[in-house]
Amino acid sequence: MDKITDTINKIPGPSHNAMDQARSRQAELTKPLGSLGRLEELSIQIAGMTGVSRPKLLKKAVCVFAGDHGVAKEGVSAYPQEVTGQMVYNFLHGGAAINVLSRHAQMRVVVVDAGVAVDLKEHPELIVQKIGYGTESIIRGSAMTKEQALKSLLLGISTIEQEKKKGLDIVALGEMGIGNTTPSAAIGSFVTGIPVEKMTGKGTGIDDEKRLQKINIIKKALTLHQPNISDGFDLLERLGGFEIGAIAGAILGAASLKIPVVIDGFISTAGALIAYSLCPLVSGYLIASHVSAETGHGAMLEYLHLTPLFDFNMRLGEGTGAALAVGVAEAACKLLDEMSTFEEAGVAGKE
Amino acid sequence: MDKITDTINKIPGPSHNAMDQARSRQAELTKPLGSLGRLEELSIQIAGMTGVSRPKLLKKAVCVFAGDHGVAKEGVSAYPQEVTGQMVYNFLHGGAAINVLSRHAQMRVVVVDAGVAVDLKEHPELIVQKIGYGTESIIRGSAMTKEQALKSLLLGISTIEQEKKKGLDIVALGEMGIGNTTPSAAIGSFVTGIPVEKMTGKGTGIDDEKRLQKINIIKKALTLHQPNISDGFDLLERLGGFEIGAIAGAILGAASLKIPVVIDGFISTAGALIAYSLCPLVSGYLIASHVSAETGHGAMLEYLHLTPLFDFNMRLGEGTGAALAVGVAEAACKLLDEMSTFEEAGVAGKE
Repeated sequence: MDKITDTINKIPGPSHNAMDQARSRQAELTKPLGSLGRLEELSIQIAGMTGVSRPKLLKKAVCVFAGDHGVAKEGVSAYPQEVTGQMVYNFLHGGAAINVLSRHAQMRVVVVDAGVAVDLKEHPELIVQKIGYGTESIIRGSAMTKEQALKSLLLGISTIEQEKKKGLDIVALGEMGIGNTTPSAAIGSFVTGIPVEKMTGKGTGIDDEKRLQKINIIKKALTLHQPNISDGFDLLERLGGFEIGAIAGAILGAASLKIPVVIDGFISTAGALIAYSLCPLVSGYLIASHVSAETGHGAMLEYLHLTPLFDFNMRLGEGTGAALAVGVAEAACKLLDEMSTFEEAGVAGKE
Repeated sequence: MDKITDTINKIPGPSHNAMDQARSRQAELTKPLGSLGRLEELSIQIAGMTGVSRPKLLKKAVCVFAGDHGVAKEGVSAYPQEVTGQMVYNFLHGGAAINVLSRHAQMRVVVVDAGVAVDLKEHPELIVQKIGYGTESIIRGSAMTKEQALKSLLLGISTIEQEKKKGLDIVALGEMGIGNTTPSAAIGSFVTGIPVEKMTGKGTGIDDEKRLQKINIIKKALTLHQPNISDGFDLLERLGGFEIGAIAGAILGAASLKIPVVIDGFISTAGALIAYSLCPLVSGYLIASHVSAETGHGAMLEYLHLTPLFDFNMRLGEGTGAALAVGVAEAACKLLDEMSTFEEAGVAGKE
């Protein structure tokens, strides 16, 4: 617990000095001021996060946390639970969407077993930090113990600390876990106050009937746990997942080290809601990549005061939307750093 | 004229065979079907354009056509006319936004002087194909002669043919020309039928008063020319620009060679409107990168049945939005080509 408190206490506000310098430089670059729109804003935000007036995003990683969910047994997903582990192997062999997009963005993929329900074969690139063999079903009790909730946050923090040693200028956060839109919708509904119906989508592709069943399960879970949730820790313990807790911890860890964090879709943002409830300053370190096709994601982002870069109707997870956005963030920083000024280029200014 | 007719006659419809194969493969890749949203659609569209079921976008170029405008003398821009030439030098020296974004996308920049008002210093990478020293003011007569209109289309076609020899799997189209939002708004209003007020923005950053003046100039030009415009050639001759004609020609040329075209903002899309009026099949080869901050751009894209990938409040031109979108198109094609199938990865399908 001390480690978590320490991490939170280390999170600084944005560097206004770096932002002012970035803003001044943007006004001198060979383009009408503001004409690069969102890219200009993003570069200034990243200057504020990193405290560097011309930030360079050279070292990039996506951390993909995998975990299983007891609630999957209640029939909330279109896919069987063994897919979680099978997809972890797919990540390790480079065949998943996140691998393709990470190669495209020249970004490394860090795969962490935070609590897959089965023991996975050893692999040099698999980080095994199992907090449990899947969570408990959230309609039968808490998803995890208090100790497990703390462990999952610590796992996120330590993952970022380890990656920072290899060089980390920006991090994307992704996940894999059959059933994990269910706890995410429960978390989203609890935090934002938006009705469960509006927060619950079709996940990987269930039909309308199964979606109604999913809604009822989430309502049941909220009825059971709501009275006992008074902070982000309770929220994680009662409704969370090991990978969701790790994402929340990774956000705290990254923010404490002034590393910009690109969040992905519904589950990644549920992790962000937990991190935000533990320390609202984290929202200053978050870049929202896309608004997912999953119902309710837009409302989660609004709650965090974030505007997504894309609306591509994506709903895969793994960090796929975030991987695309890392490329945009890098482009925004390169524009700030590499463009010529009016003076350097000998271009006349506004009349 | 024969060359243009030939080019238009060579433009094929999309390859349904390649699209069907791409669609089948998307259904076998390790993700819920449709979960990559717009990226899946884009990969299938590009398969249809290229006729290749797993297209690879290895060779990429942005063609930036520069030209000056007689109407700039009527006081429609925030910048003096000499900026057109100065920015061409900036492109050649690698200091402009399009250079930074092209390096980021690993794409070459092709700079073409289609009609800058001054003679530019020689540079090994500058393609000088001046059609004139700027157009005539569109409120005093036609922007150009019929011969110049044909020449500007031919310039676009030949530029693509030349680049194709170096290898060209996708092309982005950009421009530079002080004053060129004015002819573009005139073209946009003429083609879409949308009132001039709704089609006229602040360009590089004029104030409200100057914008009203710009609106009046565009109305005057339309009153003068509208009765005499019966096709895309007339439109280009009377209201166009040399770089706008070259963009239209480049679209025809690229479509005839089954090369996907990424269009940029307001001016690039005005060129697309001309190409579309000459041959509606071209819209099947267009990828809309972003919706510009310039009023009316969204309506132009709607007219072309295109949905932009981004809404980043950009209004720079040069091909900057298109350059970002090339990266997304490439990512979409890599996903289609490189992801493992369920069978290859040993991942269970839907229950």
